Amino acid sequence: MTTISSPQQAVTIGGGGPTVIIGERINPTNNKRLAAALLAGDFSVVTEEAQRQVAAGAHVIDVNCGLASANEVELLPQAILNAGVETPLSIDFSDPRALEAALKVCPGKPLVNSVSAEDDVLAEILPLVKQAGAAVVGLTMDASGIARDVDGRLRAADKILNAAAAAGISKDDVVIDPLAMAVSTEGDAALVTLECLRRLSAMGVATTLGASNISFGLPDRRSINAVFLAQTIAAGLTSAITDPTVPDIYKSIVIADLLVNRDEFAANYLSYYRRMQRAAKQ
Amino acid sequence: MTTISSPQQAVTIGGGGPTVIIGERINPTNNKRLAAALLAGDFSVVTEEAQRQVAAGAHVIDVNCGLASANEVELLPQAILNAGVETPLSIDFSDPRALEAALKVCPGKPLVNSVSAEDDVLAEILPLVKQAGAAVVGLTMDASGIARDVDGRLRAADKILNAAAAAGISKDDVVIDPLAMAVSTEGDAALVTLECLRRLSAMGVATTLGASNISFGLPDRRSINAVFLAQTIAAGLTSAITDPTVPDIYKSIVIADLLVNRDEFAANYLSYYRRMQRAAKQ
Repeated sequence: MTTISSPQQAVTIGGGGPTVIIGERINPTNNKRLAAALLAGDFSVVTEEAQRQVAAGAHVIDVNCGLASANEVELLPQAILNAGVETPLSIDFSDPRALEAALKVCPGKPLVNSVSAEDDVLAEILPLVKQAGAAVVGLTMDASGIARDVDGRLRAADKILNAAAAAGISKDDVVIDPLAMAVSTEGDAALVTLECLRRLSAMGVATTLGASNISFGLPDRRSINAVFLAQTIAAGLTSAITDPTVPDIYKSIVIADLLVNRDEFAANYLSYYRRMQRAAKQ
Repeated sequence: MTTISSPQQAVTIGGGGPTVIIGERINPTNNKRLAAALLAGDFSVVTEEAQRQVAAGAHVIDVNCGLASANEVELLPQAILNAGVETPLSIDFSDPRALEAALKVCPGKPLVNSVSAEDDVLAEILPLVKQAGAAVVGLTMDASGIARDVDGRLRAADKILNAAAAAGISKDDVVIDPLAMAVSTEGDAALVTLECLRRLSAMGVATTLGASNISFGLPDRRSINAVFLAQTIAAGLTSAITDPTVPDIYKSIVIADLLVNRDEFAANYLSYYRRMQRAAKQ
Protein backbone atom coordinates (compact mmCIF):
# COMPACT_ATOMS: atom_id res chain seq x y z
CA MET A 1 0.00 0.00 0.00
CA THR A 2 1.63 3.21 -1.23
CA THR A 3 0.35 6.68 -0.49
CA ILE A 4 1.49 9.64 -2.57
CA SER A 5 0.21 13.18 -2.24
CA SER A 6 -0.02 16.73 -3.44
CA PRO A 7 -0.64 19.60 -1.02
CA GLN A 8 -4.38 19.10 -1.72
CA GLN A 9 -4.83 15.35 -2.20
CA ALA A 10 -3.55 11.99 -1.05
CA VAL A 11 -3.89 8.91 -3.26
CA THR A 12 -3.35 5.36 -2.02
CA ILE A 13 -2.21 2.61 -4.38
CA GLY A 14 -3.16 -0.86 -3.17
CA GLY A 15 -5.47 0.14 -0.35
CA GLY A 16 -8.53 -1.70 -1.67
CA GLY A 17 -10.04 1.37 -3.32
CA PRO A 18 -10.44 1.93 -7.06
CA THR A 19 -7.52 1.21 -9.36
CA VAL A 20 -5.35 4.34 -9.32
CA ILE A 21 -5.19 5.81 -12.81
CA ILE A 22 -1.87 7.50 -13.61
CA GLY A 23 -2.48 9.65 -16.68
CA GLU A 24 0.26 9.09 -19.27
CA ARG A 25 -0.51 11.79 -21.83
CA ILE A 26 2.17 14.31 -20.82
CA ASN A 27 4.85 12.58 -22.85
CA PRO A 28 6.31 14.32 -25.90
CA THR A 29 7.36 11.02 -27.50
CA ASN A 30 3.80 10.33 -28.66
CA ASN A 31 2.49 13.89 -28.72
CA LYS A 32 3.89 16.17 -31.40
CA ARG A 33 1.88 19.18 -30.26
CA LEU A 34 3.26 18.82 -26.74
CA ALA A 35 6.79 18.31 -28.06
CA ALA A 36 6.63 21.51 -30.13
CA ALA A 37 5.19 23.50 -27.24
CA LEU A 38 7.87 22.27 -24.81
CA LEU A 39 10.66 23.16 -27.26
CA ALA A 40 9.14 26.63 -27.54
CA GLY A 41 9.06 26.98 -23.75
CA ASP A 42 5.25 26.96 -23.76
CA PHE A 43 3.77 24.93 -20.89
CA SER A 44 0.11 25.59 -21.64
CA VAL A 45 -0.21 22.19 -23.34
CA VAL A 46 1.13 20.54 -20.17
CA THR A 47 -1.60 22.22 -18.12
CA GLU A 48 -4.25 21.39 -20.69
CA GLU A 49 -3.29 17.70 -20.88
CA ALA A 50 -3.10 17.44 -17.09
CA GLN A 51 -6.52 18.99 -16.56
CA ARG A 52 -8.09 16.99 -19.36
CA GLN A 53 -6.87 13.73 -17.85
CA VAL A 54 -8.09 14.68 -14.37
CA ALA A 55 -11.50 15.52 -15.83
CA ALA A 56 -11.47 12.08 -17.49
CA GLY A 57 -10.75 10.29 -14.22
CA ALA A 58 -6.97 10.34 -13.64
CA HIS A 59 -5.95 10.24 -9.97
CA VAL A 60 -2.26 11.00 -10.62
CA ILE A 61 -0.60 12.83 -13.52
CA ASP A 62 2.63 11.51 -14.99
CA VAL A 63 4.93 14.26 -16.29
CA ASN A 64 7.54 13.31 -18.89
CA CYS A 65 9.69 15.83 -20.80
CA GLY A 66 12.15 13.40 -22.37
CA LEU A 67 13.00 14.88 -25.76
CA ALA A 68 16.35 14.10 -27.36
CA SER A 69 16.59 17.69 -28.56
CA ALA A 70 15.60 19.40 -25.31
CA ASN A 71 17.13 20.21 -21.98
CA GLU A 72 15.19 17.91 -19.65
CA VAL A 73 16.95 19.37 -16.59
CA GLU A 74 15.30 22.71 -17.27
CA LEU A 75 12.03 21.51 -18.79
CA LEU A 76 10.98 18.89 -16.23
CA PRO A 77 10.84 21.19 -13.15
CA GLN A 78 8.97 23.80 -15.15
CA ALA A 79 6.48 21.24 -16.43
CA ILE A 80 5.94 20.05 -12.84
CA LEU A 81 5.27 23.62 -11.74
CA ASN A 82 2.88 24.15 -14.64
CA ALA A 83 0.83 20.97 -14.29
CA GLY A 84 -2.04 23.03 -12.87
CA VAL A 85 -3.89 20.19 -11.15
CA GLU A 86 -4.49 19.25 -7.53
CA THR A 87 -3.68 15.56 -7.96
CA PRO A 88 -0.34 14.07 -6.93
CA LEU A 89 2.27 13.88 -9.71
CA SER A 90 4.49 11.16 -11.11
CA ILE A 91 7.92 12.40 -12.22
CA ASP A 92 8.94 10.50 -15.35
CA PHE A 93 12.59 11.16 -16.18
CA SER A 94 15.52 10.08 -18.35
CA ASP A 95 18.35 12.16 -16.83
CA PRO A 96 18.84 11.75 -13.08
CA ARG A 97 19.74 15.45 -12.87
CA ALA A 98 16.31 16.27 -14.28
CA LEU A 99 14.75 14.13 -11.56
CA GLU A 100 16.83 15.88 -8.91
CA ALA A 101 15.77 19.29 -10.17
CA ALA A 102 12.12 18.22 -10.43
CA LEU A 103 12.05 16.77 -6.91
CA LYS A 104 13.33 20.12 -5.56
CA VAL A 105 10.30 21.98 -6.88
CA CYS A 106 7.61 19.28 -6.66
CA PRO A 107 5.28 19.84 -3.70
CA GLY A 108 3.86 16.93 -1.68
CA LYS A 109 5.03 13.35 -2.04
CA PRO A 110 5.37 12.43 -5.72
CA LEU A 111 5.95 9.13 -7.41
CA VAL A 112 9.36 8.76 -9.06
CA ASN A 113 8.98 6.94 -12.39
CA SER A 114 11.16 4.83 -12.44
CA VAL A 115 14.10 2.67 -11.43
CA SER A 116 15.16 -0.66 -12.91
CA ALA A 117 16.98 -3.43 -11.04
CA GLU A 118 20.36 -2.30 -12.43
CA ASP A 119 22.95 -1.66 -9.72
CA ASP A 120 24.10 1.72 -10.99
CA VAL A 121 20.53 2.97 -11.48
CA LEU A 122 19.50 1.90 -7.97
CA ALA A 123 22.65 3.46 -6.48
CA GLU A 124 22.02 6.77 -8.19
CA ILE A 125 18.24 7.16 -7.94
CA LEU A 126 17.19 5.63 -4.62
CA PRO A 127 19.07 8.21 -2.50
CA LEU A 128 17.21 10.97 -4.37
CA VAL A 129 13.90 9.23 -3.69
CA LYS A 130 14.77 8.83 -0.01
CA GLN A 131 15.95 12.42 0.38
CA ALA A 132 12.74 13.76 -1.18
CA GLY A 133 10.53 11.42 0.83
CA ALA A 134 9.01 10.23 -2.42
CA ALA A 135 7.69 6.84 -3.57
CA VAL A 136 9.20 5.02 -6.54
CA VAL A 137 8.15 2.75 -9.39
CA GLY A 138 10.42 -0.28 -9.86
CA LEU A 139 10.57 -1.92 -13.30
CA THR A 140 11.30 -5.65 -13.26
CA MET A 141 14.26 -5.51 -15.63
CA ASP A 142 17.99 -5.46 -15.07
CA ALA A 143 21.20 -5.07 -17.08
CA SER A 144 20.45 -8.26 -18.99
CA GLY A 145 17.00 -7.02 -20.00
CA ILE A 146 13.49 -8.20 -19.18
CA ALA A 147 13.19 -11.80 -18.00
CA ARG A 148 10.85 -13.91 -20.09
CA ASP A 149 9.59 -15.85 -17.08
CA VAL A 150 7.71 -14.99 -13.89
CA ASP A 151 10.52 -16.03 -11.53
CA GLY A 152 13.05 -13.83 -13.30
CA ARG A 153 10.80 -10.79 -13.07
CA LEU A 154 10.08 -11.43 -9.41
CA ARG A 155 13.82 -11.70 -8.73
CA ALA A 156 14.23 -8.24 -10.24
CA ALA A 157 11.35 -6.97 -8.07
CA ASP A 158 12.99 -8.45 -4.97
CA LYS A 159 16.27 -6.82 -5.83
CA ILE A 160 14.58 -3.41 -6.11
CA LEU A 161 12.67 -3.88 -2.84
CA ASN A 162 15.86 -4.94 -1.05
CA ALA A 163 17.89 -2.06 -2.47
CA ALA A 164 15.11 0.35 -1.47
CA ALA A 165 15.07 -1.06 2.07
CA ALA A 166 18.85 -0.67 2.25
CA ALA A 167 18.44 2.96 1.16
CA GLY A 168 15.89 3.54 3.94
CA ILE A 169 12.84 3.40 1.67
CA SER A 170 9.95 1.33 3.03
CA LYS A 171 8.43 -1.48 0.98
CA ASP A 172 5.26 0.62 1.16
CA ASP A 173 6.94 3.31 -0.91
CA VAL A 174 7.83 0.99 -3.79
CA VAL A 175 5.36 0.24 -6.56
CA ILE A 176 6.40 -2.63 -8.85
CA ASP A 177 5.69 -2.60 -12.59
CA PRO A 178 6.07 -6.22 -13.82
CA LEU A 179 6.07 -4.99 -17.45
CA ALA A 180 4.13 -6.21 -20.44
CA MET A 181 5.79 -7.52 -23.60
CA ALA A 182 4.06 -7.71 -26.99
CA VAL A 183 1.67 -10.64 -27.25
CA SER A 184 2.17 -10.60 -31.03
CA THR A 185 5.76 -11.80 -30.60
CA GLU A 186 5.51 -13.73 -27.31
CA GLY A 187 2.30 -15.73 -27.05
CA ASP A 188 2.55 -16.00 -23.27
CA ALA A 189 3.41 -12.33 -22.71
CA ALA A 190 0.12 -11.47 -21.01
CA LEU A 191 0.05 -14.71 -18.99
CA VAL A 192 3.51 -13.94 -17.55
CA THR A 193 2.47 -10.42 -16.53
CA LEU A 194 -0.81 -11.67 -15.03
CA GLU A 195 0.98 -14.30 -12.94
CA CYS A 196 3.54 -11.71 -11.75
CA LEU A 197 0.65 -9.50 -10.65
CA ARG A 198 -1.02 -12.36 -8.75
CA ARG A 199 2.21 -13.15 -6.92
CA LEU A 200 3.07 -9.52 -6.16
CA SER A 201 -0.48 -8.98 -4.93
CA ALA A 202 -0.20 -12.04 -2.64
CA MET A 203 3.07 -10.55 -1.30
CA GLY A 204 1.25 -7.30 -0.45
CA VAL A 205 3.30 -5.29 -2.94
CA ALA A 206 1.59 -2.34 -4.65
CA THR A 207 1.73 -2.64 -8.45
CA THR A 208 1.44 -0.53 -11.55
CA LEU A 209 1.66 -1.27 -15.26
CA GLY A 210 2.29 0.59 -18.46
CA ALA A 211 0.09 -1.89 -20.26
CA SER A 212 0.03 -0.62 -23.82
CA ASN A 213 3.07 -2.53 -25.05
CA ILE A 214 0.98 -5.69 -24.84
CA SER A 215 -0.75 -4.78 -28.14
CA PHE A 216 2.36 -3.72 -30.08
CA GLY A 217 2.19 -4.78 -33.72
CA LEU A 218 -1.56 -5.47 -33.76
CA PRO A 219 -4.48 -3.39 -35.07
CA ASP A 220 -7.03 -1.67 -32.78
CA ARG A 221 -4.54 -1.53 -29.92
CA ARG A 222 -6.88 0.39 -27.64
CA SER A 223 -9.42 -2.45 -27.56
CA ILE A 224 -6.70 -4.97 -26.69
CA ASN A 225 -5.30 -2.67 -24.00
CA ALA A 226 -8.77 -2.18 -22.50
CA VAL A 227 -9.42 -5.94 -22.23
CA PHE A 228 -5.92 -6.57 -20.85
CA LEU A 229 -6.41 -3.91 -18.16
CA ALA A 230 -9.58 -5.68 -17.01
CA GLN A 231 -7.62 -8.93 -16.72
CA THR A 232 -4.71 -7.31 -14.87
CA ILE A 233 -7.09 -5.73 -12.35
CA ALA A 234 -8.61 -9.16 -11.69
CA ALA A 235 -5.05 -10.43 -11.15
CA GLY A 236 -4.48 -7.77 -8.48
CA LEU A 237 -3.13 -4.71 -10.33
CA THR A 238 -3.58 -1.66 -8.10
CA SER A 239 -2.63 1.21 -10.44
CA ALA A 240 -2.27 1.66 -14.18
CA ILE A 241 -0.22 4.09 -16.25
CA THR A 242 -2.67 4.72 -19.05
CA ASP A 243 -4.79 7.25 -20.93
CA PRO A 244 -8.14 7.79 -19.18
CA THR A 245 -9.36 9.99 -22.04
CA VAL A 246 -9.77 6.85 -24.19
CA PRO A 247 -13.40 5.87 -23.50
CA ASP A 248 -12.87 2.09 -23.84
CA ILE A 249 -9.92 2.16 -21.44
CA TYR A 250 -11.74 4.13 -18.75
CA LYS A 251 -14.90 2.05 -19.06
CA SER A 252 -12.94 -1.18 -18.75
CA ILE A 253 -11.19 0.02 -15.58
CA VAL A 254 -14.43 1.18 -13.95
CA ILE A 255 -16.20 -2.11 -14.69
CA ALA A 256 -13.19 -4.19 -13.66
CA ASP A 257 -13.11 -2.33 -10.33
CA LEU A 258 -16.82 -3.04 -9.85
CA LEU A 259 -16.19 -6.73 -10.46
CA VAL A 260 -13.24 -7.07 -8.07
CA ASN A 261 -15.10 -5.39 -5.20
CA ARG A 262 -13.27 -2.06 -5.35
CA ASP A 263 -16.49 -0.10 -5.87
CA GLU A 264 -18.82 -0.23 -2.90
CA PHE A 265 -22.52 -0.07 -3.82
CA ALA A 266 -21.36 0.23 -7.46
CA ALA A 267 -21.15 3.96 -6.77
CA ASN A 268 -18.36 4.71 -9.26
CA TYR A 269 -19.93 2.56 -11.93
CA LEU A 270 -23.38 4.13 -11.57
CA SER A 271 -21.92 7.63 -11.54
CA TYR A 272 -19.93 6.79 -14.69
CA TYR A 273 -23.02 5.30 -16.32
CA ARG A 274 -25.14 8.38 -15.59
CA ARG A 275 -22.40 10.66 -16.94
CA MET A 276 -22.34 8.66 -20.17
CA GLN A 277 -26.14 8.80 -20.40
CA ARG A 278 -26.09 12.58 -20.01
CA ALA A 279 -23.30 12.93 -22.58
CA ALA A 280 -25.23 10.77 -25.06
CA LYS A 281 -28.26 13.07 -24.74
CA GLN A 282 -26.28 16.22 -25.50
CA MET B 1 -10.62 -31.61 -21.53
CA THR B 2 -14.07 -32.47 -22.86
CA THR B 3 -14.85 -33.31 -26.46
CA ILE B 4 -18.40 -33.17 -27.77
CA SER B 5 -19.46 -33.69 -31.34
CA SER B 6 -22.05 -33.61 -34.07
CA PRO B 7 -21.82 -35.95 -37.07
CA GLN B 8 -19.88 -33.18 -38.84
CA GLN B 9 -17.82 -31.49 -36.11
CA ALA B 10 -15.95 -32.18 -32.87
CA VAL B 11 -15.39 -29.40 -30.33
CA THR B 12 -12.95 -29.68 -27.43
CA ILE B 13 -13.51 -27.71 -24.23
CA GLY B 14 -10.30 -27.13 -22.28
CA GLY B 15 -7.83 -28.30 -24.90
CA GLY B 16 -5.89 -25.05 -25.13
CA GLY B 17 -7.78 -23.78 -28.16
CA PRO B 18 -10.13 -20.79 -28.28
CA THR B 19 -12.77 -20.44 -25.57
CA VAL B 20 -15.70 -22.57 -26.70
CA ILE B 21 -18.75 -20.35 -27.22
CA ILE B 22 -22.05 -22.08 -26.40
CA GLY B 23 -24.77 -19.97 -27.97
CA GLU B 24 -27.59 -19.34 -25.47
CA ARG B 25 -30.22 -17.68 -27.62
CA ILE B 26 -32.51 -20.68 -28.14
CA ASN B 27 -34.29 -20.12 -24.85
CA PRO B 28 -37.95 -19.06 -24.86
CA THR B 29 -37.68 -17.48 -21.39
CA ASN B 30 -36.01 -14.39 -22.83
CA ASN B 31 -37.28 -14.60 -26.38
CA LYS B 32 -41.00 -13.97 -26.92
CA ARG B 33 -40.85 -14.55 -30.65
CA LEU B 34 -39.28 -17.98 -30.11
CA ALA B 35 -41.80 -18.79 -27.36
CA ALA B 36 -44.73 -17.99 -29.61
CA ALA B 37 -43.28 -20.00 -32.50
CA LEU B 38 -42.62 -23.04 -30.29
CA LEU B 39 -46.16 -22.96 -28.92
CA ALA B 40 -47.43 -22.85 -32.52
CA GLY B 41 -45.28 -25.87 -33.42
CA ASP B 42 -43.12 -23.70 -35.71
CA PHE B 43 -39.40 -24.52 -35.46
CA SER B 44 -38.17 -22.07 -38.08
CA VAL B 45 -37.13 -19.61 -35.35
CA VAL B 46 -35.02 -22.35 -33.74
CA THR B 47 -33.18 -22.88 -37.03
CA GLU B 48 -32.81 -19.16 -37.59
CA GLU B 49 -31.39 -18.51 -34.09
CA ALA B 50 -29.04 -21.48 -34.37
CA GLN B 51 -27.65 -20.41 -37.73
CA ARG B 52 -27.38 -16.78 -36.67
CA GLN B 53 -25.29 -17.74 -33.65
CA VAL B 54 -23.01 -20.03 -35.65
CA ALA B 55 -22.46 -17.20 -38.14
CA ALA B 56 -21.57 -14.95 -35.18
CA GLY B 57 -18.98 -17.41 -33.86
CA ALA B 58 -20.78 -19.99 -31.69
CA HIS B 59 -19.06 -23.39 -31.58
CA VAL B 60 -21.96 -25.19 -29.83
CA ILE B 61 -25.68 -24.37 -29.81
CA ASP B 62 -27.67 -24.68 -26.59
CA VAL B 63 -31.29 -25.74 -27.15
CA ASN B 64 -33.81 -24.93 -24.42
CA CYS B 65 -37.58 -25.36 -24.78
CA GLY B 66 -38.56 -24.83 -21.16
CA LEU B 67 -41.92 -23.10 -21.23
CA ALA B 68 -44.37 -23.51 -18.38
CA SER B 69 -47.24 -23.75 -20.85
CA ALA B 70 -45.63 -26.19 -23.26
CA ASN B 71 -44.92 -29.87 -23.52
CA GLU B 72 -41.13 -29.94 -23.25
CA VAL B 73 -41.07 -33.71 -23.81
CA GLU B 74 -42.44 -33.18 -27.31
CA LEU B 75 -40.83 -29.83 -28.13
CA LEU B 76 -37.23 -30.49 -27.11
CA PRO B 77 -36.56 -33.45 -29.47
CA GLN B 78 -38.20 -31.58 -32.34
CA ALA B 79 -36.13 -28.47 -31.64
CA ILE B 80 -32.98 -30.61 -31.60
CA LEU B 81 -33.92 -32.10 -34.96
CA ASN B 82 -34.66 -28.65 -36.37
CA ALA B 83 -31.50 -26.87 -35.19
CA GLY B 84 -30.18 -26.94 -38.75
CA VAL B 85 -26.51 -26.42 -37.92
CA GLU B 86 -23.42 -28.63 -38.12
CA THR B 87 -22.09 -27.73 -34.66
CA PRO B 88 -22.50 -29.99 -31.63
CA LEU B 89 -25.56 -29.25 -29.48
CA SER B 90 -26.14 -28.64 -25.79
CA ILE B 91 -29.44 -30.06 -24.51
CA ASP B 92 -30.86 -27.68 -21.92
CA PHE B 93 -33.78 -29.26 -20.11
CA SER B 94 -36.16 -28.94 -17.15
CA ASP B 95 -37.97 -32.28 -17.29
CA PRO B 96 -35.72 -35.38 -17.28
CA ARG B 97 -38.17 -37.09 -19.64
CA ALA B 98 -37.59 -34.29 -22.14
CA LEU B 99 -33.84 -34.92 -21.84
CA GLU B 100 -34.36 -38.63 -22.37
CA ALA B 101 -36.46 -38.02 -25.48
CA ALA B 102 -33.96 -35.45 -26.80
CA LEU B 103 -30.97 -37.75 -26.26
CA LYS B 104 -32.72 -40.44 -28.30
CA VAL B 105 -32.87 -38.23 -31.39
CA CYS B 106 -29.72 -36.14 -30.95
CA PRO B 107 -26.91 -37.26 -33.26
CA GLY B 108 -23.27 -37.23 -32.16
CA LYS B 109 -22.14 -36.61 -28.59
CA PRO B 110 -24.07 -33.69 -27.11
CA LEU B 111 -23.56 -31.76 -23.89
CA VAL B 112 -26.29 -32.30 -21.28
CA ASN B 113 -27.07 -28.99 -19.56
CA SER B 114 -27.17 -29.58 -16.60
CA VAL B 115 -27.00 -31.42 -13.28
CA SER B 116 -26.62 -29.92 -9.81
CA ALA B 117 -24.94 -31.64 -6.85
CA GLU B 118 -28.34 -32.76 -5.48
CA ASP B 119 -28.50 -36.53 -4.84
CA ASP B 120 -31.81 -37.12 -6.59
CA VAL B 121 -30.80 -35.09 -9.63
CA LEU B 122 -27.49 -36.94 -9.95
CA ALA B 123 -29.23 -40.30 -9.51
CA GLU B 124 -31.77 -39.54 -12.22
CA ILE B 125 -29.70 -37.71 -14.85
CA LEU B 126 -26.24 -39.28 -14.80
CA PRO B 127 -27.45 -42.71 -16.01
CA LEU B 128 -29.10 -40.99 -19.00
CA VAL B 129 -25.83 -39.16 -19.76
CA LYS B 130 -23.88 -42.40 -19.49
CA GLN B 131 -26.29 -44.37 -21.64
CA ALA B 132 -26.19 -41.74 -24.38
CA GLY B 133 -22.40 -41.40 -24.19
CA ALA B 134 -22.87 -37.67 -23.70
CA ALA B 135 -20.93 -35.09 -21.66
CA VAL B 136 -22.56 -33.12 -18.85
CA VAL B 137 -22.46 -29.67 -17.27
CA GLY B 138 -22.33 -29.73 -13.46
CA LEU B 139 -23.59 -26.68 -11.55
CA THR B 140 -21.88 -26.07 -8.21
CA MET B 141 -25.07 -25.96 -6.15
CA ASP B 142 -26.84 -28.50 -4.00
CA ALA B 143 -30.09 -28.85 -2.06
CA SER B 144 -29.06 -26.03 0.26
CA GLY B 145 -28.44 -23.67 -2.65
CA ILE B 146 -25.30 -21.99 -3.97
CA ALA B 147 -22.40 -21.73 -1.52
CA ARG B 148 -21.17 -18.18 -1.00
CA ASP B 149 -17.55 -19.27 -0.72
CA VAL B 150 -15.03 -20.95 -3.01
CA ASP B 151 -14.60 -24.06 -0.85
CA GLY B 152 -18.34 -24.71 -0.76
CA ARG B 153 -18.62 -24.49 -4.53
CA LEU B 154 -15.62 -26.76 -5.05
CA ARG B 155 -17.15 -29.31 -2.67
CA ALA B 156 -20.25 -29.34 -4.90
CA ALA B 157 -18.00 -29.77 -7.97
CA ASP B 158 -16.22 -32.69 -6.29
CA LYS B 159 -19.51 -34.32 -5.45
CA ILE B 160 -20.62 -34.12 -9.09
CA LEU B 161 -17.28 -35.45 -10.38
CA ASN B 162 -17.41 -38.35 -7.91
CA ALA B 163 -21.03 -39.19 -8.72
CA ALA B 164 -20.20 -39.08 -12.42
CA ALA B 165 -17.25 -41.42 -11.91
CA ALA B 166 -19.49 -43.79 -9.94
CA ALA B 167 -21.95 -43.71 -12.85
CA GLY B 168 -19.14 -44.59 -15.28
CA ILE B 169 -18.71 -41.10 -16.69
CA SER B 170 -15.10 -39.95 -17.03
CA LYS B 171 -13.92 -36.70 -15.42
CA ASP B 172 -13.20 -35.64 -19.01
CA ASP B 173 -16.90 -35.75 -19.77
CA VAL B 174 -17.89 -33.35 -16.97
CA VAL B 175 -17.76 -29.59 -17.46
CA ILE B 176 -18.13 -27.61 -14.23
CA ASP B 177 -20.02 -24.29 -14.08
CA PRO B 178 -18.97 -22.52 -10.84
CA LEU B 179 -21.86 -20.05 -11.24
CA ALA B 180 -21.90 -16.29 -10.98
CA MET B 181 -24.02 -14.39 -8.46
CA ALA B 182 -25.00 -10.72 -8.83
CA VAL B 183 -22.17 -8.36 -7.97
CA SER B 184 -24.77 -5.71 -7.09
CA THR B 185 -25.86 -7.71 -4.04
CA GLU B 186 -22.64 -9.61 -3.21
CA GLY B 187 -19.55 -7.43 -3.62
CA ASP B 188 -17.25 -10.43 -3.87
CA ALA B 189 -19.45 -12.39 -6.29
CA ALA B 190 -17.04 -12.10 -9.23
CA LEU B 191 -13.97 -12.73 -7.06
CA VAL B 192 -15.47 -16.00 -5.79
CA THR B 193 -16.24 -17.20 -9.32
CA LEU B 194 -12.78 -16.19 -10.57
CA GLU B 195 -11.05 -18.07 -7.76
CA CYS B 196 -13.22 -21.16 -8.41
CA LEU B 197 -12.15 -21.01 -12.06
CA ARG B 198 -8.45 -20.76 -11.14
CA ARG B 199 -8.71 -23.77 -8.85
CA LEU B 200 -10.77 -25.87 -11.29
CA SER B 201 -8.33 -24.97 -14.05
CA ALA B 202 -5.39 -26.06 -11.85
CA MET B 203 -7.25 -29.35 -11.23
CA GLY B 204 -7.51 -29.90 -15.00
CA VAL B 205 -11.31 -29.69 -14.95
CA ALA B 206 -13.04 -28.22 -18.01
CA THR B 207 -15.26 -25.28 -17.10
CA THR B 208 -18.16 -23.29 -18.44
CA LEU B 209 -20.13 -20.33 -17.14
CA GLY B 210 -23.48 -18.70 -17.70
CA ALA B 211 -21.93 -15.37 -16.84
CA SER B 212 -24.77 -12.93 -17.30
CA ASN B 213 -26.16 -13.15 -13.78
CA ILE B 214 -23.08 -11.23 -12.62
CA SER B 215 -24.62 -7.95 -13.83
CA PHE B 216 -28.16 -8.48 -12.49
CA GLY B 217 -29.68 -5.24 -11.20
CA LEU B 218 -27.19 -2.92 -12.94
CA PRO B 219 -27.52 -0.85 -16.12
CA ASP B 220 -25.65 -1.67 -19.37
CA ARG B 221 -25.40 -5.32 -18.42
CA ARG B 222 -23.78 -6.34 -21.70
CA SER B 223 -20.70 -4.19 -21.03
CA ILE B 224 -20.31 -5.68 -17.57
CA ASN B 225 -20.75 -9.21 -18.92
CA ALA B 226 -18.15 -8.56 -21.63
CA VAL B 227 -15.53 -7.35 -19.13
CA PHE B 228 -16.30 -10.22 -16.76
CA LEU B 229 -15.88 -12.78 -19.53
CA ALA B 230 -12.40 -11.40 -20.27
CA GLN B 231 -11.52 -11.80 -16.59
CA THR B 232 -12.94 -15.33 -16.37
CA ILE B 233 -10.94 -16.42 -19.43
CA ALA B 234 -7.76 -15.10 -17.79
CA ALA B 235 -8.74 -17.16 -14.72
CA GLY B 236 -8.91 -20.32 -16.87
CA LEU B 237 -12.52 -20.50 -18.13
CA THR B 238 -12.60 -22.84 -21.14
CA SER B 239 -16.16 -22.36 -22.44
CA ALA B 240 -18.90 -19.77 -22.00
CA ILE B 241 -22.67 -20.00 -22.32
CA THR B 242 -23.35 -16.62 -23.86
CA ASP B 243 -24.72 -14.69 -26.82
CA PRO B 244 -22.09 -14.29 -29.54
CA THR B 245 -24.38 -12.01 -31.55
CA VAL B 246 -23.69 -9.22 -29.02
CA PRO B 247 -20.68 -7.44 -30.57
CA ASP B 248 -19.07 -6.41 -27.25
CA ILE B 249 -19.29 -9.96 -25.90
CA TYR B 250 -17.75 -11.58 -28.94
CA LYS B 251 -14.99 -8.98 -29.19
CA SER B 252 -14.10 -9.42 -25.54
CA ILE B 253 -13.81 -13.21 -25.91
CA VAL B 254 -11.66 -12.98 -29.04
CA ILE B 255 -9.28 -10.48 -27.43
CA ALA B 256 -9.18 -12.39 -24.14
CA ASP B 257 -8.24 -15.55 -26.06
CA LEU B 258 -5.47 -13.66 -27.85
CA LEU B 259 -4.12 -12.50 -24.48
CA VAL B 260 -4.14 -15.92 -22.81
CA ASN B 261 -2.29 -17.57 -25.69
CA ARG B 262 -5.28 -19.41 -27.15
CA ASP B 263 -4.90 -17.75 -30.55
CA GLU B 264 -1.69 -18.72 -32.32
CA PHE B 265 -0.26 -15.97 -34.57
CA ALA B 266 -3.30 -13.89 -33.52
CA ALA B 267 -5.08 -15.58 -36.41
CA ASN B 268 -8.59 -15.42 -34.91
CA TYR B 269 -8.13 -11.85 -33.75
CA LEU B 270 -6.84 -10.65 -37.14
CA SER B 271 -9.62 -12.48 -38.96
CA TYR B 272 -12.17 -10.88 -36.60
CA TYR B 273 -10.58 -7.47 -37.08
CA ARG B 274 -10.66 -7.71 -40.87
CA ARG B 275 -14.31 -8.85 -40.77
CA MET B 276 -15.20 -5.79 -38.66
CA GLN B 277 -13.28 -3.54 -41.06
CA ARG B 278 -15.20 -4.93 -44.02
CA ALA B 279 -18.53 -4.58 -42.20
CA ALA B 280 -17.75 -0.97 -41.31
CA LYS B 281 -17.12 -0.16 -44.99
CA GLN B 282 -20.48 -1.56 -46.12
